[in-house]
Amino acid sequence: MADSGWPGCAKSLKGVILDMCGVLYDCGEGDGVAIAGSIEAVKRLKASNLQLRFCTNETQNARETFVAMLQRLGFDISVSEVFSPAPAAVAVLKERGLRPHLLVYDGLLPEFESVDKTNPNCVIIGDSAEKFTYQNLNEAFRVLIGLEKPVLFSLGQGRYYKESNGLNLDVGAYMKALEYACDLKAEVVGKPSPRFFQSVLNDMGLQPHEALMIGDDLVNDVGGAQNCGMKGVQVRTGKYRPSDERHSTVTAGGTVDNLAQAVDMILNQRH
Amino acid sequence: MADSGWPGCAKSLKGVILDMCGVLYDCGEGDGVAIAGSIEAVKRLKASNLQLRFCTNETQNARETFVAMLQRLGFDISVSEVFSPAPAAVAVLKERGLRPHLLVYDGLLPEFESVDKTNPNCVIIGDSAEKFTYQNLNEAFRVLIGLEKPVLFSLGQGRYYKESNGLNLDVGAYMKALEYACDLKAEVVGKPSPRFFQSVLNDMGLQPHEALMIGDDLVNDVGGAQNCGMKGVQVRTGKYRPSDERHSTVTAGGTVDNLAQAVDMILNQRH
Repeated sequence: MADSGWPGCAKSLKGVILDMCGVLYDCGEGDGVAIAGSIEAVKRLKASNLQLRFCTNETQNARETFVAMLQRLGFDISVSEVFSPAPAAVAVLKERGLRPHLLVYDGLLPEFESVDKTNPNCVIIGDSAEKFTYQNLNEAFRVLIGLEKPVLFSLGQGRYYKESNGLNLDVGAYMKALEYACDLKAEVVGKPSPRFFQSVLNDMGLQPHEALMIGDDLVNDVGGAQNCGMKGVQVRTGKYRPSDERHSTVTAGGTVDNLAQAVDMILNQRH
Repeated sequence: MADSGWPGCAKSLKGVILDMCGVLYDCGEGDGVAIAGSIEAVKRLKASNLQLRFCTNETQNARETFVAMLQRLGFDISVSEVFSPAPAAVAVLKERGLRPHLLVYDGLLPEFESVDKTNPNCVIIGDSAEKFTYQNLNEAFRVLIGLEKPVLFSLGQGRYYKESNGLNLDVGAYMKALEYACDLKAEVVGKPSPRFFQSVLNDMGLQPHEALMIGDDLVNDVGGAQNCGMKGVQVRTGKYRPSDERHSTVTAGGTVDNLAQAVDMILNQRH
């Protein structure tokens, strides 16, 4: 029974899923900065008999772009190990025969190159930053309101995030605007959607209880993973706040100072 | 008892409140077009012993501007008879000692000339059309999120409206975006807010049951008035749609072809 808690659960783990921004590195202008010990921690996980995947809600750039940035920082990581909302959305589009009108950041467009975008029968919005213009929002709205069965996909549902110029509205706010105008409910693609976590588990060929998610976002990373039956551990880096440790609805399986400490504890349990 | 229905209720009426766009005139580019019989109908109401007020959710222009337009069309109307969201918001600001950050259309700014806007402690959004930029929304958001007790006023809560270039998102969509990002509930100023209708009744010195609202918007005009204890009649002009006559929650006290017919029926009952 003790094995089901943290860090005892590490004994029976078969796979680990890592959030990226706030766990591997601190995001910011241009390239980010690696969090102390994280590069080495990823190496040690890869040298173990655990499977490893990366799972992010990054939607301003295609995976090729931000994986190359992480490689420049020194991380051993490849595109095939990374799960992000855009490819997950592409999979849903192909499965359901949907052709999207895209309201996404220019850097994300390469992810949708293989998708038929003519005569759209759904809308996808991501964090479009300065592309969230009155004109672009009206265009997305007109596509939706003109459909007999309007379908809106939102790449994540964040409220806001911090940039060097201050706080900015995130995609979730614009998702709510379109939901209200069209009287519909968006389908969220990305964390904390169970379908998104499940696609990572499927790729590893694991059952939920065999996998552990490590993230800095208590609700989307830890809570989302737990809702799928996975273990969830929070790091005290990135967007962690002390108040997370007394959150009203989500309690992390464990809380650690950073990724390096989490990996130490996992590997110690297994030797 | 028959007197409580339409048009019997007209016998005991003391005041009438008219919606403007869609009842008096059809809105459009530049000046609108008077709806047949409406200019004469307003004249006949003014010549009767009924009090008359006008009540609109217009927020792109100051009252002086759109009242002048109606006068050019031939209507006997003055600014003091018109109730619109901006002056109602100004009254609330003064009552509660609030200083707004304004996200409104340029044409509306004159309504807020007398208001202290330094060091804002609330946000007011109206239908800002092309002023709904990413930058302006972030600015409004940053004011709200920086307040200990964020207060957001929305001038109306429309979902969308039609312009010559197609459908455009209305202020309600942007209200929902800010509500979600800041985890708050906006205070709606204008129809169908009971406080707004009450201010018109107060100005006439009437009880709700002594007044009748005539509008083209079933939910905001007719339903809003009925929620305050007033009578509500819908005209088959403006945004009226046949499906309004079998609406799931709002049933108009009566439905008439246009304002001229409503005034005929009212005055016939009283003579």
